[in-house]
Amino acid sequence: MSTALKQSTPEVPVPFYQPTGNEEQLFEVAWQRHLPLLLKGPTGCGKTRFVSHMAAKLGMPLYTVSCHDDLTAADLTGRYLIKGGETVWVDGPLTRAVRNGGICYLDEVVEARKDVTVVLHPLTDDRRLLPLDRTGELLEAPDNFMLVVSYNPGYQNLLKQLKPSTRQRFLAVEFNFPDPDTEADIIMRESGIDAEGARILVRIAGNIRNLAGIDLEEAASTRLLVYCATLLKTGVAFDDAIQAAIIEPLSDDRDIITGLREAIGIIRG
Amino acid sequence: MSTALKQSTPEVPVPFYQPTGNEEQLFEVAWQRHLPLLLKGPTGCGKTRFVSHMAAKLGMPLYTVSCHDDLTAADLTGRYLIKGGETVWVDGPLTRAVRNGGICYLDEVVEARKDVTVVLHPLTDDRRLLPLDRTGELLEAPDNFMLVVSYNPGYQNLLKQLKPSTRQRFLAVEFNFPDPDTEADIIMRESGIDAEGARILVRIAGNIRNLAGIDLEEAASTRLLVYCATLLKTGVAFDDAIQAAIIEPLSDDRDIITGLREAIGIIRG
Amino acid sequence: MSTALKQSTPEVPVPFYQPTGNEEQLFEVAWQRHLPLLLKGPTGCGKTRFVSHMAAKLGMPLYTVSCHDDLTAADLTGRYLIKGGETVWVDGPLTRAVRNGGICYLDEVVEARKDVTVVLHPLTDDRRLLPLDRTGELLEAPDNFMLVVSYNPGYQNLLKQLKPSTRQRFLAVEFNFPDPDTEADIIMRESGIDAEGARILVRIAGNIRNLAGIDLEEAASTRLLVYCATLLKTGVAFDDAIQAAIIEPLSDDRDIITGLREAIGIIRG
Amino acid sequence: MSTALKQSTPEVPVPFYQPTGNEEQLFEVAWQRHLPLLLKGPTGCGKTRFVSHMAAKLGMPLYTVSCHDDLTAADLTGRYLIKGGETVWVDGPLTRAVRNGGICYLDEVVEARKDVTVVLHPLTDDRRLLPLDRTGELLEAPDNFMLVVSYNPGYQNLLKQLKPSTRQRFLAVEFNFPDPDTEADIIMRESGIDAEGARILVRIAGNIRNLAGIDLEEAASTRLLVYCATLLKTGVAFDDAIQAAIIEPLSDDRDIITGLREAIGIIRG
Amino acid sequence: MSTALKQSTPEVPVPFYQPTGNEEQLFEVAWQRHLPLLLKGPTGCGKTRFVSHMAAKLGMPLYTVSCHDDLTAADLTGRYLIKGGETVWVDGPLTRAVRNGGICYLDEVVEARKDVTVVLHPLTDDRRLLPLDRTGELLEAPDNFMLVVSYNPGYQNLLKQLKPSTRQRFLAVEFNFPDPDTEADIIMRESGIDAEGARILVRIAGNIRNLAGIDLEEAASTRLLVYCATLLKTGVAFDDAIQAAIIEPLSDDRDIITGLREAIGIIRG
Amino acid sequence: MSTALKQSTPEVPVPFYQPTGNEEQLFEVAWQRHLPLLLKGPTGCGKTRFVSHMAAKLGMPLYTVSCHDDLTAADLTGRYLIKGGETVWVDGPLTRAVRNGGICYLDEVVEARKDVTVVLHPLTDDRRLLPLDRTGELLEAPDNFMLVVSYNPGYQNLLKQLKPSTRQRFLAVEFNFPDPDTEADIIMRESGIDAEGARILVRIAGNIRNLAGIDLEEAASTRLLVYCATLLKTGVAFDDAIQAAIIEPLSDDRDIITGLREAIGIIRG
Repeated sequence: MSTALKQSTPEVPVPFYQPTGNEEQLFEVAWQRHLPLLLKGPTGCGKTRFVSHMAAKLGMPLYTVSCHDDLTAADLTGRYLIKGGETVWVDGPLTRAVRNGGICYLDEVVEARKDVTVVLHPLTDDRRLLPLDRTGELLEAPDNFMLVVSYNPGYQNLLKQLKPSTRQRFLAVEFNFPDPDTEADIIMRESGIDAEGARILVRIAGNIRNLAGIDLEEAASTRLLVYCATLLKTGVAFDDAIQAAIIEPLSDDRDIITGLREAIGIIRG
Repeated sequence: MSTALKQSTPEVPVPFYQPTGNEEQLFEVAWQRHLPLLLKGPTGCGKTRFVSHMAAKLGMPLYTVSCHDDLTAADLTGRYLIKGGETVWVDGPLTRAVRNGGICYLDEVVEARKDVTVVLHPLTDDRRLLPLDRTGELLEAPDNFMLVVSYNPGYQNLLKQLKPSTRQRFLAVEFNFPDPDTEADIIMRESGIDAEGARILVRIAGNIRNLAGIDLEEAASTRLLVYCATLLKTGVAFDDAIQAAIIEPLSDDRDIITGLREAIGIIRG
Repeated sequence: MSTALKQSTPEVPVPFYQPTGNEEQLFEVAWQRHLPLLLKGPTGCGKTRFVSHMAAKLGMPLYTVSCHDDLTAADLTGRYLIKGGETVWVDGPLTRAVRNGGICYLDEVVEARKDVTVVLHPLTDDRRLLPLDRTGELLEAPDNFMLVVSYNPGYQNLLKQLKPSTRQRFLAVEFNFPDPDTEADIIMRESGIDAEGARILVRIAGNIRNLAGIDLEEAASTRLLVYCATLLKTGVAFDDAIQAAIIEPLSDDRDIITGLREAIGIIRG
Repeated sequence: MSTALKQSTPEVPVPFYQPTGNEEQLFEVAWQRHLPLLLKGPTGCGKTRFVSHMAAKLGMPLYTVSCHDDLTAADLTGRYLIKGGETVWVDGPLTRAVRNGGICYLDEVVEARKDVTVVLHPLTDDRRLLPLDRTGELLEAPDNFMLVVSYNPGYQNLLKQLKPSTRQRFLAVEFNFPDPDTEADIIMRESGIDAEGARILVRIAGNIRNLAGIDLEEAASTRLLVYCATLLKTGVAFDDAIQAAIIEPLSDDRDIITGLREAIGIIRG
Repeated sequence: MSTALKQSTPEVPVPFYQPTGNEEQLFEVAWQRHLPLLLKGPTGCGKTRFVSHMAAKLGMPLYTVSCHDDLTAADLTGRYLIKGGETVWVDGPLTRAVRNGGICYLDEVVEARKDVTVVLHPLTDDRRLLPLDRTGELLEAPDNFMLVVSYNPGYQNLLKQLKPSTRQRFLAVEFNFPDPDTEADIIMRESGIDAEGARILVRIAGNIRNLAGIDLEEAASTRLLVYCATLLKTGVAFDDAIQAAIIEPLSDDRDIITGLREAIGIIRG
Repeated sequence: MSTALKQSTPEVPVPFYQPTGNEEQLFEVAWQRHLPLLLKGPTGCGKTRFVSHMAAKLGMPLYTVSCHDDLTAADLTGRYLIKGGETVWVDGPLTRAVRNGGICYLDEVVEARKDVTVVLHPLTDDRRLLPLDRTGELLEAPDNFMLVVSYNPGYQNLLKQLKPSTRQRFLAVEFNFPDPDTEADIIMRESGIDAEGARILVRIAGNIRNLAGIDLEEAASTRLLVYCATLLKTGVAFDDAIQAAIIEPLSDDRDIITGLREAIGIIRG
């Protein structure tokens, strides 16, 4: 079950993705014209799936990195490791994508440490260069290299932002939850639930997403609806499935949980 | 007394666990459908025991990690160590679980450092992948791998929270203290005390858990009741046992300690 | 003068310890029933001496660690060192106690770094396990292993506290200064001073411990009284001995020092 | 596609640069008289392009470093690396420029860590020295070495500033956006769009740059206008191109985005 | 000019020290009875000289360490170094003093990092032990080992204090500036200036030390008076010597400097 | 162009330095009597040049270190490096100066990390010792070693100050800008401009230095005047030279820049 680290290969079937706007056209133009792309949107709305879909459609390998507080430039570019008494350079995922062609996707890029900008800047202007100081190489990105980054504007803070000098290097697309019919289709396809069940879950999600008086950090994602449908399909009781797959993952606060239950109850009534 | 690091093996007898709701059903569905599971609840209410119980029942090895402020992704995935002049890769507990199958349980996951998300994200969506940048491997989780995490919503703070983009990847179950009869059964079984003694301790715990005017970070756990019963069984005087096993472990504050003693005294009167 | 690192051995004579309550009984029950023990109390009231006394009485080796801000799990469990071109694993004091049996005493445990909890948790519930990720071992504590920790509730702060999930794993005993006759006995025995001199020092300490209007972080410990008696025994003048052994070690504040001198003067008048 | 790390070579054609003031004369005097140069100005106004242009015009290699929070002196000067069992010193980009001659350009120098000053100070006064403590060398900059640094005064803060003792070592030039005709020329040349389209984009940028009631960290750069023109040229609809290439890269705030759309609408009306 | 690291040897002549109270008696009792000693007092009042004096008088080697923010336990106890392919343990100054006998003096001990307490605690109670975890040794301090620490109560802050559990392990002596005649003697002896000149400088220092309306962090030390006398002796003009050796070292604030000049001028008038 | 790291050698011609007070006499007395020297003053007023001048005049090598936030004691004293499989000790600049004789100059010493005090303290009292814990050496400074440090009192803050216990170890001299005639001489000599041009620049600097209503961190240094004269000499227009060499290096603030232009315009009118 261990495969080469290239994270998806051209032979992979194209994952299902239901477009919600002109995002496919923009991705394709960006790909053709060598422009880097920035995806903005909430958790679980399909950004990662969209990138997988486009990579498979273009027949390109995809290198995905989930960024975090301690992610440094070396995590992207590579480092020297000692193996069997020998010092060996091991490319990081970004370097692999630049060296071999492919799409490198940095998920939640605002979480990464600031030294990541040193590798992003020369890659995202007309130079398209990746300098590897440690190996003394200066890689020029091939035509079939593309950089995609994403973040969620909903929970940025002042300490964690893309600098304008970085942001203004990207084409940007905003994502949102799919429209109700599309979302119901996705739920049915992923869980095997029937159309009526899927529509009920979509209506519940809509109610939660529109709640005014409740302080949720983020609304219920499509992924949680799929989880809930999976529980229902396996025979878990409706209330238990809603509680375990939607309400508990959204909040620990007793008042918010009560508010969520009320909002959902209205739907079913 | 040194054994292999697989922390429990199928041959181990199934540890006693008294269910308090539908947690066993949810765990089993999660196991069958490859969904990650999040357990929420106070200290000492049995989350760790529940996971041990389910692992033994399913005949799966269990890899438990107590998370803390300095726990990094490498503590979970593994690192290169130099042994006898050779550099050897040593799998961390998460990697062992993914490579060999089994349940990996991250206790108090909110305490871990943020780079842990980089390994949790691709493992907890439909990809179920564990990338090991250092070895150049991309492990695909087998069907018999499951990830369980837990935390205590009672003492989270703003700096230590699961990001919504992480939380919304889990089914979630809330735990609480067992009901009085169940708790008395547990105490009797673990300490060898008689039913009357166990019921007194459960009533004392109930009073403490319902105290309104006292600022306790957490109420008395079932574990402390078992400790207290153990002292009583060994012949320690009732007051001394209550003081050493329940009151002193709960607080250092003289006023709170007085309040606790009064609450307990009422019971005995 | 260099001996093996096992910090005290069964052949050592039992150090003098004057019990002030049921602490010996609780220690013995904890020892028999494999419960971890937490000692709470002010500086210099005899916690360390008590543990040495019990270890010698039980004929067990004692491994003491003074915890501090930078103490990590590896300081307790061990690490790989390079010796003569070879990489050698060196057990830390906790591992030595678990591997060979004995009492491990973590003094001022709240000062340690948070990753210490990762080794304390599995050792302090019914698992009694010490996982050594680095060596791939999972040590099971033998029957003759016991963990004792201590801290001073008087100067904890919000950043440095035992989490409830850690505290509730211990039986707890509170220590305080010995009663006047016991304290005088200790002073006479340790310094060789006569009974009258010892009683005067105990009365001075009592006055300081009861001072209301003075902001001392901690009151005079029994240790300081022994120091003072030692100076008197060597011929240092009374005022000079009080100043050097009691007042100057307690405070740098001129107002507090004046207040202390007045409180002591009343006694002598 | 991997070339030596010298980042541009004399054979490279001179990149197009449209001067907006006396910056070329000042650069040339600084080059002749061995004075270091500081470029100040907003994101995407052409500072990096200007330096590339001047380096190519002077036939000198250019070493560019994007500075960031974690950039240290060693990243500029070099470090020892272990390669094939041998320890090898690898020059950093600044050292390469000093050793071989050339222009070293530190982009966003205020972001670098403070130890960078230790290498900049002796290089930027009449000593023109680069001490390499690690190798024991003291390099004297040759006549054909020049140091150029840049930063954006628009988003400095109190923690990140050049100390006066550093600033006062540089000649300084302020950059701004090109005048409308120049900017339209640049857009036409870079995207292949026609003059009318370019002029519309320049007017849109002008409106955004003059917006009073909107809190943008930075206005639309020339680069974004080129991106937008590229989308238009590829057949993307006007509104979609403006949204993806200008509005979304500038802000995540719904109110600001609405304000931007209104400002742009006025132009088109 | 390179000698062994033992910082002073018995053959060294006893440095001049003018006692100002019972500090010599207390030091000798502490030495005989194996009590650790704490010296409190302002900068430049002779604490370091006093310790050198006592060490030479007792014929003991002296190991002095100036503590600072980054001083760790390993700086005191030692570490493994790689020399000529071999890993060699190198004792730190405290270990050398414990192993060979001698006085170890930790100057400004409150500045050291907190892990230093782990080595000080077992050394400063009746155990007198120095555990070296890295080498597996447990050193017992010989009779001719003594620990002396110092700090300046004048500029401690809340973050940098000795914990009571550390302070209460030491006898403590407060130091202050010498009385005028003693101070004049010291100045004459150290600089070669005549008695009249020395007395003038002592009076100037007295005026500065008594200044009420001026916010000096510390008053002029005896050392500065010696510096000033040295300048005068070499022929520097009186005003210039006062300015360079007393006023400029005390403050950068123009108002304070003017106040100091006025205070000094009154003396001379 | 690579020379040994001794930063200036006796054969070097004495750099021009125009004294402004008794600083040469004080330096010479400090040199003869082995007293450390502290230079205080604003940026670019000639402190570094003064030290170079005195070192050359005394025929002594000069070791200059620009201090910064991350400068540690090891950067001054040296460290072990691995070269060709061998571990080699490499002296830092301070050690080189102590071992071989010479002047060590720590520029902006307040910026250095606190562990630097551990090497400065024993070097700056009558011991004149440099302990090298790592090599086990205790170097005694030879008669021809001198320590000079500098800082700019104008932009210290509370976190970055010399402790009084450090400051009071130095003779101190305050520097300021040279008087107008001297400054004009310097400008003519360094740039080749004529006397009239130099006087105009000195008057401009005077106006800037006396500006009351403008918040400049530091006034224009002599160095900037030399830069400006250099531009004028090369044929740059007067306004352009003033803007690039004086105004832009002083501030980024539009209001301050306008104020500066007005102040300068008055001069020319």
